Amino acid sequence: ANPVFAQLPTTIFTVMSALAVEHGAVNLGQGFPDKDGPNSILAAAARALTEESNQYPPMRGRQDLRRALAAHAMRFYGLSYDADTEIVVTSGATEALTAAILAFAPQGGEVVLIDPSYDSYSPIAEAAGARVKTLSLAPPDWRLTEEALRSVITPSTSALLLNSPMNPIGKVFDDEELATLARVLSETNAIAILDEVYEHLVFDDRAHRSLASLPGMRERCVRIGSAGKMFSLTGWKVGWVMGPAPLIDVAAKAHQFLTFTTPPALQKGIAFALEHEMDFTLNLTRDLQDRRDLLAQGLARLGFKPLACEGTYFLTADIRGLIDESDAAFCQRLVREAGVAAIPLSAFFQSGKPDHLIRFAFCKQQSVLEEAVKRLERYF
Amino acid sequence: ANPVFAQLPTTIFTVMSALAVEHGAVNLGQGFPDKDGPNSILAAAARALTEESNQYPPMRGRQDLRRALAAHAMRFYGLSYDADTEIVVTSGATEALTAAILAFAPQGGEVVLIDPSYDSYSPIAEAAGARVKTLSLAPPDWRLTEEALRSVITPSTSALLLNSPMNPIGKVFDDEELATLARVLSETNAIAILDEVYEHLVFDDRAHRSLASLPGMRERCVRIGSAGKMFSLTGWKVGWVMGPAPLIDVAAKAHQFLTFTTPPALQKGIAFALEHEMDFTLNLTRDLQDRRDLLAQGLARLGFKPLACEGTYFLTADIRGLIDESDAAFCQRLVREAGVAAIPLSAFFQSGKPDHLIRFAFCKQQSVLEEAVKRLERYF
Ligand SMILES: CSCCC(=O)C(=O)O
Ligand SMILES: CSCCC(=O)C(=O)O
Repeated sequence: ANPVFAQLPTTIFTVMSALAVEHGAVNLGQGFPDKDGPNSILAAAARALTEESNQYPPMRGRQDLRRALAAHAMRFYGLSYDADTEIVVTSGATEALTAAILAFAPQGGEVVLIDPSYDSYSPIAEAAGARVKTLSLAPPDWRLTEEALRSVITPSTSALLLNSPMNPIGKVFDDEELATLARVLSETNAIAILDEVYEHLVFDDRAHRSLASLPGMRERCVRIGSAGKMFSLTGWKVGWVMGPAPLIDVAAKAHQFLTFTTPPALQKGIAFALEHEMDFTLNLTRDLQDRRDLLAQGLARLGFKPLACEGTYFLTADIRGLIDESDAAFCQRLVREAGVAAIPLSAFFQSGKPDHLIRFAFCKQQSVLEEAVKRLERYF
Repeated sequence: ANPVFAQLPTTIFTVMSALAVEHGAVNLGQGFPDKDGPNSILAAAARALTEESNQYPPMRGRQDLRRALAAHAMRFYGLSYDADTEIVVTSGATEALTAAILAFAPQGGEVVLIDPSYDSYSPIAEAAGARVKTLSLAPPDWRLTEEALRSVITPSTSALLLNSPMNPIGKVFDDEELATLARVLSETNAIAILDEVYEHLVFDDRAHRSLASLPGMRERCVRIGSAGKMFSLTGWKVGWVMGPAPLIDVAAKAHQFLTFTTPPALQKGIAFALEHEMDFTLNLTRDLQDRRDLLAQGLARLGFKPLACEGTYFLTADIRGLIDESDAAFCQRLVREAGVAAIPLSAFFQSGKPDHLIRFAFCKQQSVLEEAVKRLERYF
């Protein structure tokens, strides 16, 4: 069997969700909302399911959805993509990421990851036979410097993976960092794979800016998005990748052998959502900001030190001073003894792992967050 | 970009379907039924969509579906799989195939394909860095011999891919061939990846037998199936892979980074279907057999020479004597001038391509097949 996969642990998200069920814990581990998106979207998909064809839709996705995605990119980022040749619908952003990595990280190529990073990036790049080079951001400010970037990016870099807004640390790369990235990338032939699944979930009047919108960058960037994250429907597994046609052509060829296509009724639901329910997403962002604050305040009262959180579903907290053990041991104790599941940040690092930070998901109803804080209060 | 994908043509199925639309042709190219499966299945999924959670289901699939799949394997093949540890639900059989190839065809490993073969097998194995070795079956009887098998299988073979019932040629491997496969495989450590998506679509009172059910074979086989093919819902992209736990553990690790999971409402619909609608599938098989005969008789009247077809959606016909050109040129002419789309068989071969055979899909309504024959009649 392939050692890349045979030696891999089950994702920490699945492990922690299972422990949460086993111990009756409040699950602030795996990042999924506990309230589904608007009924109107569910109804649109249910209608398509019973009234339209359930056979293969086009390999690159339904045209209505591709058009809605092109309009979305224009509306929010001023980015123009052709719906027919520059957008591919995928079975979730995970598939889009894997398609992009397979497309742009060939055997013997070099892929740059920025740690902390999502746990699929590195094994898929390795399975594709690419060499993985990692740049680690350092807490508490997680700043990307030109020096650090130049230490890993070389003329032979095939691809860089950028996740902004960034899971697990809630960082939104700022204009200066994006400009640095653009400058350094423009001296290479590297493709930038932009994991932008949290594009709308940005707080405190900040806004997400896509690296693709910087001068000269559109032609070397593919943007990956997630309907699950946008409309609180993570189980639907509807995602996409968009970029210049020559890059999307290659990603589409990987996609055609990963899943071939994505259920048409769910695509129809998301086409409807992009046209009629963007207000849900904008309201969700305001709600999430309040819940972030609720959780941060609760944790701070207990002696955790919450770090800044500018976006995503996730808040990171420093556990030093509370208890003298590693993040992983601490998370095991929390789920078993305090009845609250969280994720150790070390799970997101290839090496040089910090071991004093843990991640809480705050994409949960207010009462759930309050219950989590109450349980922690009782425990400490 | 990755040359494996960059140099790959768009799948012939997509190309031909697009040409069929462009030229208003009857589409007997891409294999999908033109009538959806039972309304009761659609209704069960629509209900789940509006009444149950739409967040991530378990990574390996819903338990109700895994249990229904275990019961199905026992009922039809006497094969026992543990629903919790030996079955993974995937986003279509295409994903299951890719997960299995990534899991069992590591960098530098050797994969044996039996041509004619489905067009995803070889590029995915190459993208994984495995060496592809191909055994070609020869028309018109497509018999697998021990000698041919021994010429490609060696002690260093990592995996063999077996598609039975076999697309595109409608072959069902018989007991003697399966016994030969079992004997040769048992002298190696190779894993057999069984693409059994047409398992129920077998005609003339034959039955599909899984290689996994032969003595000693269960422990080295993973069986891949498709709800789309079973219940005429190809757009749903619900598939699965089942096998012994140590193999399924590795396939699940690939799956977690290909799509992570599959929409829960569609899984629920298929769990319902396996429990309540297997009669649909058994009736479909009888219908398909009649349509195979209708098409074969029509083609024979026109001077095509239909080959034997024991299962699947597909009938292969010899075009020699009709017109003196290659299968690919002939299919281009048919779709443009006769208004009927078919697939050249050469698209399914790595080398030593026969160029006198074309594939027609007969998984279409009777009136559609009659219209196709009428158009061909008019043209010739
Ligand atoms: C695919 S399960 C993990 C969900 C998620 O994005 C996270 O918790 O980080
Ligand atoms: C995934 S599109 C192709 C459908 C099919 O299995 C075929 O036509 O062979």
